[in-house]
Amino acid sequence: MQQAIAILDSGVGGLTVVKEVMRQLPREKIIYFGDTARTPYGPRSSEEVRHFTEQIVDFLIQFNPKAIVIACNTATAAALDYISEKVSIPVIGVIHPGARAAISATKTGNIGVIGTLGTIGSGAYTAALQQLSPYIHVLSEACPALVPLVEKGQFRSDETTAVVDDSLRGMKSSSIDCLILGCTHYPFLKETIQEVMGEKVRLISSADETAREVSTILYDKGQLANSNESPVHQFFCSGDADIFQKIAKNWLGEHIRRTPVVWQVSRFSDT
Amino acid sequence: MQQAIAILDSGVGGLTVVKEVMRQLPREKIIYFGDTARTPYGPRSSEEVRHFTEQIVDFLIQFNPKAIVIACNTATAAALDYISEKVSIPVIGVIHPGARAAISATKTGNIGVIGTLGTIGSGAYTAALQQLSPYIHVLSEACPALVPLVEKGQFRSDETTAVVDDSLRGMKSSSIDCLILGCTHYPFLKETIQEVMGEKVRLISSADETAREVSTILYDKGQLANSNESPVHQFFCSGDADIFQKIAKNWLGEHIRRTPVVWQVSRFSDT
Repeated sequence: MQQAIAILDSGVGGLTVVKEVMRQLPREKIIYFGDTARTPYGPRSSEEVRHFTEQIVDFLIQFNPKAIVIACNTATAAALDYISEKVSIPVIGVIHPGARAAISATKTGNIGVIGTLGTIGSGAYTAALQQLSPYIHVLSEACPALVPLVEKGQFRSDETTAVVDDSLRGMKSSSIDCLILGCTHYPFLKETIQEVMGEKVRLISSADETAREVSTILYDKGQLANSNESPVHQFFCSGDADIFQKIAKNWLGEHIRRTPVVWQVSRFSDT
Repeated sequence: MQQAIAILDSGVGGLTVVKEVMRQLPREKIIYFGDTARTPYGPRSSEEVRHFTEQIVDFLIQFNPKAIVIACNTATAAALDYISEKVSIPVIGVIHPGARAAISATKTGNIGVIGTLGTIGSGAYTAALQQLSPYIHVLSEACPALVPLVEKGQFRSDETTAVVDDSLRGMKSSSIDCLILGCTHYPFLKETIQEVMGEKVRLISSADETAREVSTILYDKGQLANSNESPVHQFFCSGDADIFQKIAKNWLGEHIRRTPVVWQVSRFSDT
């Protein structure tokens, strides 16, 4: 049986990574877990985020996946190293792929990063960027008002434009030429963010870049799927399965044949 | 002592990969070998290219590198699998990184590839693209007139424009939205190629993308350099060291402090 790629997130944000994996690697089977009962992770302590991430990995590992993608910047910052040591398969976070893509794209060396309080507070992007190149200048800012818009499904509205405009005030007046969307929820708001920042700033989606690095790493290990049959994906969440299903169907529409079946895993709901 | 990344090519084309590794991974030490006495590889048989590549790898492996980059599409097509089995360190070719980047970038799924006779004749790009996604349409064409322009250092001229225009006639009249520069020499001609193809076609440089995947794979293995000292690179070629030095200095100028010292390795010159 084909081994799946397991993808986890604090909620629906990781579906941006799912969509790109489906597009770039359509032969691959995906098992997704969204911790919608406990979203958002951004304001939580890193100990708590690490504990939640470990619980989800323990659940996903039962399906014998060939790789685990932590499709959440907050969880990557808090738990990537810990989970990598715990399991024997590749564990891929979303921070380094975004950092590498930004370094590849920047012409001036001035890179902006936006993310949750947890991600920005951890300094993980700045560390990743400067580990790769000491010549990079990083401007980072937490934008805690953006995730709630996405979790409500409010991708385009006057309120969204107003909130994005207010959140990006500092970035707009800076000299960055690349802006890393350092939260997997932000690609849902990409059009508004691009309008607010203007065409000259290149947006780097950590979601797109992570899908590409999953491809690179599985290729390097000789583990890419080669079946011609359409894979059957599996979706799990800890909160309301109907709301999750609606957002998943809406976002992944063109890449899935029928409405995704979503299972609620209640054991996470009451912790 | 810091382990280097070894990069090899049939001539000077691989310097496009060197430049991107220097830009994206400025902490890394590079050892380069350009087989300028036997360039071009494009029209040679794959057996001969495999033999030459093996000779160069035997030379480079003495320096105990942490990875080998086959920065030549012809040699990647002919020898990547063979060399990967022969050595115990990661061997990274230029074909899959370009293929992955094109799949990430395309909106229509129609991708063009240009390369040498050897690369295009091998079908390696088409295989790599369709291995990743069965929904990709590939239009590929050999452009044997381009490498000689680069090896002569003729990057911008009326003759260059005329030759590029003639070579890309088929690509221009197609519906591709991405064009893979499937030869590491072609980034030297990037401006002319972009002018000829127009702004709507996105050029994918296998050189840039390979540098990024070197970063991904060394990170995955925990082998990225972390020193703050400027690395001292080493350059070797089989042909005239003065001509090589001139092109290397011209192309890498901003990334190196002084004129690179180039050693001619004569044992390859007379085979």
